[in-house]
Amino acid sequence: MQAVILAAGLGTRLRPFTENFPKPLLQVAGRELLYRHLHLLSQGGINHFIIIINPQHERFYREFLARYPHFSCTLVKNPFPEKGNGYSFFLAKDYVSTPFILTMGDHVYERDFVKKALGLKGLVIDKEGRFIDPQEATKALCQKGKIISLGKDLSSYTGFDTGFFILEPEIFYVAEKLIRQKSEISLSGIMEKAKIPCSELSGLFWMDIDTPKDLKQATKFLVKTAVKGGEDGFISRLINRRVSTWCSTFFINYLSPNMATLLTTLLGFLAALLLFWSPKIAVLLYQLSSMLDGMDGEIARASLRESPFGGWLDSVLDRFVDFAFLLGLYLILKPAYPWQQTIALLAFFGSVMVSYTSERYKGAFGRTIYADYPFLRKVPGKRDERVFFIMISVLLDWLWEIFWVLAFITNLRVLLTLFLVGKRGSKLKE
Amino acid sequence: MQAVILAAGLGTRLRPFTENFPKPLLQVAGRELLYRHLHLLSQGGINHFIIIINPQHERFYREFLARYPHFSCTLVKNPFPEKGNGYSFFLAKDYVSTPFILTMGDHVYERDFVKKALGLKGLVIDKEGRFIDPQEATKALCQKGKIISLGKDLSSYTGFDTGFFILEPEIFYVAEKLIRQKSEISLSGIMEKAKIPCSELSGLFWMDIDTPKDLKQATKFLVKTAVKGGEDGFISRLINRRVSTWCSTFFINYLSPNMATLLTTLLGFLAALLLFWSPKIAVLLYQLSSMLDGMDGEIARASLRESPFGGWLDSVLDRFVDFAFLLGLYLILKPAYPWQQTIALLAFFGSVMVSYTSERYKGAFGRTIYADYPFLRKVPGKRDERVFFIMISVLLDWLWEIFWVLAFITNLRVLLTLFLVGKRGSKLKE
Repeated sequence: MQAVILAAGLGTRLRPFTENFPKPLLQVAGRELLYRHLHLLSQGGINHFIIIINPQHERFYREFLARYPHFSCTLVKNPFPEKGNGYSFFLAKDYVSTPFILTMGDHVYERDFVKKALGLKGLVIDKEGRFIDPQEATKALCQKGKIISLGKDLSSYTGFDTGFFILEPEIFYVAEKLIRQKSEISLSGIMEKAKIPCSELSGLFWMDIDTPKDLKQATKFLVKTAVKGGEDGFISRLINRRVSTWCSTFFINYLSPNMATLLTTLLGFLAALLLFWSPKIAVLLYQLSSMLDGMDGEIARASLRESPFGGWLDSVLDRFVDFAFLLGLYLILKPAYPWQQTIALLAFFGSVMVSYTSERYKGAFGRTIYADYPFLRKVPGKRDERVFFIMISVLLDWLWEIFWVLAFITNLRVLLTLFLVGKRGSKLKE
Repeated sequence: MQAVILAAGLGTRLRPFTENFPKPLLQVAGRELLYRHLHLLSQGGINHFIIIINPQHERFYREFLARYPHFSCTLVKNPFPEKGNGYSFFLAKDYVSTPFILTMGDHVYERDFVKKALGLKGLVIDKEGRFIDPQEATKALCQKGKIISLGKDLSSYTGFDTGFFILEPEIFYVAEKLIRQKSEISLSGIMEKAKIPCSELSGLFWMDIDTPKDLKQATKFLVKTAVKGGEDGFISRLINRRVSTWCSTFFINYLSPNMATLLTTLLGFLAALLLFWSPKIAVLLYQLSSMLDGMDGEIARASLRESPFGGWLDSVLDRFVDFAFLLGLYLILKPAYPWQQTIALLAFFGSVMVSYTSERYKGAFGRTIYADYPFLRKVPGKRDERVFFIMISVLLDWLWEIFWVLAFITNLRVLLTLFLVGKRGSKLKE
């Protein structure tokens, strides 16, 4: 299946960014707008792209495509940009013969939007428009499932035009007819005339980029939709994610996901070392590293750079940091009695095992444990909660309490996991 | 696709087991011979079975099928068993209209045999016959890829008849013609006459069950082929597997895989407790539990009962047992200096992390780490090696050495894993 991407506009409202530079190659959340289209559509099964460009930008597109040779693209130059985006679209005619996707080079969509939109028909409209300015947006009026009117100033409308179309090649006959009649022609004009179907897909993130403010907004929203909340503990949802998404939005253009992992790891080790100098400052740094621990995943997903390796590295290094910090606390506390040492060692063990049981589950079943046992989400003992508890305890000088509470909470959680998984597992006998 | 299973024989050489009981319902490695056919063929895509039986055994087959309602089976009674197995086969004629599998109810095949044989044509022959008695076996002589002769006493032959056929329904015309001519007719006679193709599949485990000795042999071989050697350490290959396969063969009819897991876990905990009474006896028990640790997996795979749950449970409980034993040693040793405690705690941490890094890898990549980094197989630090080392050390009264050697070896292995995976992971940037 093919996709046509309109990228011939001049983006005048984004100057100075677009002074002699094409808007679709501007970066949002660490990736060019055009790269996002190519990446997400490729994952949905699109294997060839027709990109309609302005001839004065050809050099930039060639350079861009040379960097990503795994995308199969045809660049089509529009020598008459003044004829409108309907004419740009018409130029794709000779390259398309089966149903195809049409989308706008200056729009940005979240992953789920593209995934779901690919299964629809005609123009995809959004009835909510949660992430756009309703005043500025193009609206669509539909009747009996067909577009009858498109425009910014419709007084009544069915939803917002997302700029994402699933079309049949017959649309080009309508376009050709209109072009013979008029000197300037808009895409909306063609779609109205062709009465293409409209399909609803509401509530997901998409927007068009018109102003420098839009660039920032889009980055912010992409980072927010990149939060993988399913495995977050209570403290993460309440505090850590707010800090990490703010930082991710700020650093996404400067930090790769793995650099973010290494940075928070170093912060964690530094915190463990500082324990011998000032436990209170150390524990604040430890909590900071825990708050930033979500950055690597957010940056990876928002900038389409996620990898199994990144997830693996993050998990393994988190275990090292937690061990180092607990080791520091153990050496400061020096538990003398066997029962104290037993409890302290149980805290070490339980802290790793909380993660071990759920990661081993994923290795065995290929699913996260929280998908099968949502109840475990509410049980305390996850990393964000442990670190937060350690911070509070150190600030209150409750060193010994750290070990016995951790020993109790983490091992209880592991035993509960054993019980829950065991109960279901023993039923699946044959 | 369908399969025909011939199960009408009387199995006279297996008396008293087959005194009024059908041979295909005898158990081998904890499962009825017939169940093995149904299970393995189902996994290969066969969705209906035609089972030709002796009328006097109908009751047993009905009971058997009632226990496994997820297999779709048709029982066809052969009222004239004296007419030979060729006649039994002919009775399947009205139930089969497309290419089908034919196999013998008294044969047993390992999983890989069935998987590979399903892609072949005609009679599957084995040139090695590693697991059978060449004197007793039926041989096949082929020319230009076709069967020309089948029998026990062929002076020259191409390979052994495995009893596994992939056939076209036209074979029944040949069978019908022969039946009109003779009163008793063998399957071999039909196959020779039809000149069916022959395909080679050599070296895998299969055998036919004729005598009580065969029953024992088959169980033993099935347990051996059930060893998943890829993740075994040095001590496991050299010692533990010999003990565990011997025990699995012995206990497979009495122990479920999860019972075996619980038993070895209890043995391990008992060993940890005994440390405070007699460390040397305790450590011998610990090594015994490590030797038996392979039983659950062997029993599960040999009796076709493997489950993701079983693997998960085994891993999690192993971590508990190892922690308990190291905790016992720590409390006996009572390391007093901070540097000693640090080393001891590193031994605790590294022992879990060896497993954590490889299990987390499977969760992330969906593959075992040894498939991608075979070199890690040769690096010491796996559980079997750790337990063996602890045993030797305790027997020699080297308690303190346990911790520093473990701390060193396990963490070195984890760091090496980080280095190897990191080196490749950082290359996969885009």
